[in-house]
Amino acid sequence: MHSIEFYRNEFISHLENSIVKKEPNTLYEPIAYLLGLGGKRLRPVLTLLTTNLFEANYKEALNAALAVEVFHNFSLIHDDIMDDAPLRRGMITVHEKWNVNTGILSGDAMLILSYQFLEGYEPKVFKDLSKLFNKTAIEVCEGQQYDVDFETRDDVTLPEYLKMIEFKTSVLVAAAMKMGAIIAKTTLENQDLIYEFGRNLGIAFQLQDDYLDAFGDPKTFGKQVGGDIIENKKTFLYLQSLKKGSEEQQKQLLDLFSIQPKNPLSKIEAIKAIFIQSGAAEATKAEIKKYTDKAFNALNKITVSKEHKEVLVTFGKKLMNRDS
Amino acid sequence: MHSIEFYRNEFISHLENSIVKKEPNTLYEPIAYLLGLGGKRLRPVLTLLTTNLFEANYKEALNAALAVEVFHNFSLIHDDIMDDAPLRRGMITVHEKWNVNTGILSGDAMLILSYQFLEGYEPKVFKDLSKLFNKTAIEVCEGQQYDVDFETRDDVTLPEYLKMIEFKTSVLVAAAMKMGAIIAKTTLENQDLIYEFGRNLGIAFQLQDDYLDAFGDPKTFGKQVGGDIIENKKTFLYLQSLKKGSEEQQKQLLDLFSIQPKNPLSKIEAIKAIFIQSGAAEATKAEIKKYTDKAFNALNKITVSKEHKEVLVTFGKKLMNRDS
Repeated sequence: MHSIEFYRNEFISHLENSIVKKEPNTLYEPIAYLLGLGGKRLRPVLTLLTTNLFEANYKEALNAALAVEVFHNFSLIHDDIMDDAPLRRGMITVHEKWNVNTGILSGDAMLILSYQFLEGYEPKVFKDLSKLFNKTAIEVCEGQQYDVDFETRDDVTLPEYLKMIEFKTSVLVAAAMKMGAIIAKTTLENQDLIYEFGRNLGIAFQLQDDYLDAFGDPKTFGKQVGGDIIENKKTFLYLQSLKKGSEEQQKQLLDLFSIQPKNPLSKIEAIKAIFIQSGAAEATKAEIKKYTDKAFNALNKITVSKEHKEVLVTFGKKLMNRDS
Repeated sequence: MHSIEFYRNEFISHLENSIVKKEPNTLYEPIAYLLGLGGKRLRPVLTLLTTNLFEANYKEALNAALAVEVFHNFSLIHDDIMDDAPLRRGMITVHEKWNVNTGILSGDAMLILSYQFLEGYEPKVFKDLSKLFNKTAIEVCEGQQYDVDFETRDDVTLPEYLKMIEFKTSVLVAAAMKMGAIIAKTTLENQDLIYEFGRNLGIAFQLQDDYLDAFGDPKTFGKQVGGDIIENKKTFLYLQSLKKGSEEQQKQLLDLFSIQPKNPLSKIEAIKAIFIQSGAAEATKAEIKKYTDKAFNALNKITVSKEHKEVLVTFGKKLMNRDS
């Protein structure tokens, strides 16, 4: 097993060698631009790492890792159009730098390219990878659609919210790892266990993101603390408060979520107080722990040596402690 | 071998049984709407017919035909957004009926679904079909990008134009047929010959579309005669005229293509006169014949009985005579 940094560097080299600029330039330049913006490359790293975990050579997984990363960037390019986002990774978004039509078409090409990167695998592995990829890709679309729908719905339930974050973010992390396991030709049980590790850790991470948006340390949390509250986003904390809070707390929360004050500080403080007093903050922490435990329980059951699992244990803990 | 009508009906039954309405409804309803709008179902019919041509059961090709048709409709949904088109098959377009975001996301889901419909094939056939599908899909995107680019370019060459129509429309027709051939497990030579038949016939058909837009009979040509001229579209006739015309004809054509008169009749007549006098009309007819001949030459070389080929010969002739 190697370090996360090692896998990341290997992946970036492979990415740079694989993204050749073809004609028409107007189609491929935006793709190279977006893929060159960087990012943590978390998903492809997990693919490489998982192939090593199951005692195969990570190099065999480089093309699958590429498929996962290019697919992820396809979803970003189209999501950014839908969200009308001006920036991605601190740089101007594709549809802003070029135009919406370029964003749509270059995104389409990226989705197709991601399938094409799987062609190097022999038929049986190719089919297993493709089936998982299809299932995951359609779930990511469904997750994005739920997210869009929830913005205008007042009756979103907690299970619906959990399904949305599972589909929108966790299944791709889980699939990235399972693809590594498929390539390593480990048992079906191990393939499913590593998928469960990724899926549950992904959900835990996303719930923690909701939690830290309100209660995180501005010094270590990557984003603006209170950002979700300013945008009146229906997070897990919000939905829990509406479920667990008193009638008065629920009314107060709905009122606060209908306004957008210029100076949001007092609104943020009032909402954080409701999150705590309603029991939603504690309930969210419990839910994060539940999914983290599920993830590590799945990891425990995987039949590889303890030393091999160590990288993933460290990775998972670091991710949930947000000190990476 | 069965009639075109038989294959179409079989395909439509299969389509109706396969498009199940799933959740979220907001994602799948637009897909069902677009796929329900009808159309000639030309591509999937060709897939079924080709499987029969090579003496396998057309039923084996139903899912590949579905993949081709759903892919084609994915490209329509995104193209309609890019072209800001209000109508598709005489009905309101998806992005107008819902909104642009719905058009983007439902289109994405259709692209993924089209891949998923191939999962029923055994690994070797699945991989062959997927590779052809990937190559074709990326070419269709490239073709659409060339088409977009050509609108604002003044130096489009005839070979570039031919490549654009080949990628934008012909390769999918060709791939639809080759997929049928792959499923029938015919020889690689036959697979390539049927691809060449579809590709060349597709190019001939598209060039004829350009020709008939100016010189077609309003009673039998499906679209408005002169439509390309009104829109100042750089068709094969236009590019040929700029190449073959006298300096005076070229200047006149460029002038006419810079105006958009309220009553376009005299503009249409003037341009048609240039198309004829420059020799572009004759050159276009010759090019149509060249590609049609290439198509039928490929068909001739295919090693199946003459009786089996008869349906395709009739189909090709009918298509090029536009009496279907």
